[in-house]
Amino acid sequence: MAPTSETLTAERILEATEEVLRRHGPAKATVVDVARALGVSHGSVYRHFRTKAALREAVTKRWLDRTSGELSGIVTGDTAPEARLRDWLAALFAAKRRKAGEDPELFATYMVLTDEAGTAVGDHITDLTAQLARIIQSGVETGSFTTPDPQASARAVFQATGRFHDPCYAREWEEPGAETDFEAVVELTVRGLRSAEPTP
Amino acid sequence: MAPTSETLTAERILEATEEVLRRHGPAKATVVDVARALGVSHGSVYRHFRTKAALREAVTKRWLDRTSGELSGIVTGDTAPEARLRDWLAALFAAKRRKAGEDPELFATYMVLTDEAGTAVGDHITDLTAQLARIIQSGVETGSFTTPDPQASARAVFQATGRFHDPCYAREWEEPGAETDFEAVVELTVRGLRSAEPTP
Repeated sequence: MAPTSETLTAERILEATEEVLRRHGPAKATVVDVARALGVSHGSVYRHFRTKAALREAVTKRWLDRTSGELSGIVTGDTAPEARLRDWLAALFAAKRRKAGEDPELFATYMVLTDEAGTAVGDHITDLTAQLARIIQSGVETGSFTTPDPQASARAVFQATGRFHDPCYAREWEEPGAETDFEAVVELTVRGLRSAEPTP
Repeated sequence: MAPTSETLTAERILEATEEVLRRHGPAKATVVDVARALGVSHGSVYRHFRTKAALREAVTKRWLDRTSGELSGIVTGDTAPEARLRDWLAALFAAKRRKAGEDPELFATYMVLTDEAGTAVGDHITDLTAQLARIIQSGVETGSFTTPDPQASARAVFQATGRFHDPCYAREWEEPGAETDFEAVVELTVRGLRSAEPTP
């Protein structure tokens, strides 16, 4: 049990919430469990998160933000845009695969939460697509990519590679051919961005 | 109730099975229900399909084959390979969307069945990928596509467009932007096939 003398921050509450979710599962975890784990009253928790739904959404957002945070460093890297794009897609696949593989119960829990979360997933996809768009934009500037609309291309690349980051494919990620499949799809999309305009 | 005088063919049994599944749902539908709908003994059904699992797998295969059958005409068409590829992907999206939208209960039923089916889904994907590979191969022959391995490219195109045919995305297919998203992903993959080798 955490010492009550520590300041009760939103971050501490979210940490405890994740632990409670891991232990009790999404159906049973309550705000009272979270308060108990922190050694505080449930009123103290509600002062930071006004409803149970708000708390669940915040912990989901925190979980998703961990991935976007990891990836953002690649966007601003100084390698060539095409290499950055490949690295970014590989890092996204690796992060999702790690989340699904290392802690399957917590992953399953978050699958339930992302399903009920209001805007957390949509915001996460917007974040990731914006990162992709920045990489594609820098490729357009250096002349390695050709696209009239980096934002739209980013969305297409994100969707075309969905098999390697969308949780509905989590079962496939440990299949023997997954890495080869990933590389082939990345190759196809990178070539699609690189391609010149259609010959008439 | 069907007249018992008609010859009891596998096709008639499968038709009746689909109707029983539609009415009772996958959890409750039994071989006895199928036999009753046909006005025959369940022994007669078992003469064609030795187990309930075999019957369920056969009806699933029939449902999936309907889509591959519709698409196969496009493969052998005489338009340019790139146009055929676009038509084929659009027809696949349309077929899946129609199945999901027009008869959601039956679609949900088949989602349960495809999950339990032994090789039906794998075979279906192999069929579809082979059709795609033939179109890509003919594009390589006419010089419109560049790929060392049409089979591998077909697999990549199939996976890259998964959002528009994989049932796990069925909910997204009626969203306002679905058609635009589809076109952007098709454009990206077609350009990826068209693209020349990377400049060094």
